Amino acid sequence: MSLVVTGSIGIDDVKTPYGQVEGVLGGSVVYFALSAALLSEVRVVGAVGEDFPSNFRSVLEQRRIDLRGLETRKGSRTFRWAGRYESDLGEAQTTHVDLNVLAEAPPPIPSSYQDSKFVFLAATHPDLQRDLAQRFTAAELVVCDTRDLWLNNEKEAFIKLLNQVSAVVLNDHEASLFTDQTDLIRAGRRILEYGPRFAIVKKGQHGAMLVTSDRIVALPSFPTDKVKDPTGAGDSFAGGLMGYLAGRGRFELDDLPRAMACGTVVASFAIEDFSTKALEDVTPARLEDRLDQYVAMLKLD
Amino acid sequence: MSLVVTGSIGIDDVKTPYGQVEGVLGGSVVYFALSAALLSEVRVVGAVGEDFPSNFRSVLEQRRIDLRGLETRKGSRTFRWAGRYESDLGEAQTTHVDLNVLAEAPPPIPSSYQDSKFVFLAATHPDLQRDLAQRFTAAELVVCDTRDLWLNNEKEAFIKLLNQVSAVVLNDHEASLFTDQTDLIRAGRRILEYGPRFAIVKKGQHGAMLVTSDRIVALPSFPTDKVKDPTGAGDSFAGGLMGYLAGRGRFELDDLPRAMACGTVVASFAIEDFSTKALEDVTPARLEDRLDQYVAMLKLD
Repeated sequence: MSLVVTGSIGIDDVKTPYGQVEGVLGGSVVYFALSAALLSEVRVVGAVGEDFPSNFRSVLEQRRIDLRGLETRKGSRTFRWAGRYESDLGEAQTTHVDLNVLAEAPPPIPSSYQDSKFVFLAATHPDLQRDLAQRFTAAELVVCDTRDLWLNNEKEAFIKLLNQVSAVVLNDHEASLFTDQTDLIRAGRRILEYGPRFAIVKKGQHGAMLVTSDRIVALPSFPTDKVKDPTGAGDSFAGGLMGYLAGRGRFELDDLPRAMACGTVVASFAIEDFSTKALEDVTPARLEDRLDQYVAMLKLD
Repeated sequence: MSLVVTGSIGIDDVKTPYGQVEGVLGGSVVYFALSAALLSEVRVVGAVGEDFPSNFRSVLEQRRIDLRGLETRKGSRTFRWAGRYESDLGEAQTTHVDLNVLAEAPPPIPSSYQDSKFVFLAATHPDLQRDLAQRFTAAELVVCDTRDLWLNNEKEAFIKLLNQVSAVVLNDHEASLFTDQTDLIRAGRRILEYGPRFAIVKKGQHGAMLVTSDRIVALPSFPTDKVKDPTGAGDSFAGGLMGYLAGRGRFELDDLPRAMACGTVVASFAIEDFSTKALEDVTPARLEDRLDQYVAMLKLD
């Protein structure tokens, strides 16, 4: 079943306690697509400027990633982001942003994407996400992410978006901010009141929690002490999650725990090196192997 | 196999966002014993004063709890603790402490306890814990807890204790404080360098992590939005853990994940009401039922 992702493709500068890099490949679409492609084909919608390096494009080209929706816009420049992490490797602090092409008109959606059944709307202005959601008329599962920026400044627009999507994937801080609830189960249930069938709260090193109308599933992260750069962990989680669902071909709520496990394990690779370096070296076989370890760790009977 | 716990028995005042209570039953030994007794017999070593209410004693008497080591000391007063929790229900802030009988000589250990095979040393001065550890000469598994107070003020004594015990159970904040490591896997491994065979790091609402020389197991907490009072959660976790191991009759490292699951589930009951109220209503059947739910939640294959 066809999976499509919309969002940012960027060039990043990142500093963590384990080093720093400049001018590296980044953006939510990139992390999502590299992750999802381990489990399914994935279609990309995004725009870059003329300055986008060809070797960055090559990283995406060598996989099951459909780049017909990747627009290289003449006269524009690629989105740039710079951020740093403190020693606890928690939320990134953004030190610099140049929206560049992201501040212009959104890229066109290829007609060949019209039959997409699984849609992931990475974080951007919720009105733009809602517009995108409406354009995938054949979609069966539309999942959105968001950022605290939009919850602070565009809460009403986000509420309208929630009414248009099947689900939301967001981090614990954002779930609490939106619902004014520190308890994440209550926060998740509050989100469901706005329309989604399920919410997944990402808790970074503490794993993720699924909230549906009648079920809560909490899963830990895959234990690793090899973290170098948490950038893209959330988008890699979403990519593994939706790649698994798309690979199955149809969606049932019962598939979500296993899908979350895939997301968790893919994210555990993503954070092992800067930018997409670790993710580029993952094969479906390595993913399967670590997934087996994760499933075995949680087998208690 | 015989299980024994040493530590505090107290009278607590507790305030949380969900209410407040005064003069209620508390103390690490109490939470541990009520929890462990769901899975095994448990022997208690502790001292209270003449002011210890008889109905508090009754709570302990009605179960598989051996109270021959519970000394009611003439002329002394029971340990008192008062604390409050903020809205995130994280670490308690201690607002008042009267050590009372805990500042006097430790209680005698009944000769009938001499064959105890499983020993839990709840948090107190590490020199006292070490002394207790040495007195259980038949012990096969000695597990200690601690507090940030002792890590700040008696670090060398704690290091000596680590060389005498089989394992340590402590919270994430304490593990980081002792090892100067925010990464909990590295913190756990550092602790093992001092002698223990395993360390379990408790992460509150985020679950717990086992660290052995060649294995990491991260488990989530049992998801519940019914938390009223987190007091005793850590001791209930330890009680469920060691009650399970003692109930099995012999110790193997491979039993630890299931033992942690028991601890996690017992703790999820303990926090549902103030003091020991929720814990008093748990039966082995209710524990088994929730344990089944927990195991099913984590079954991913």
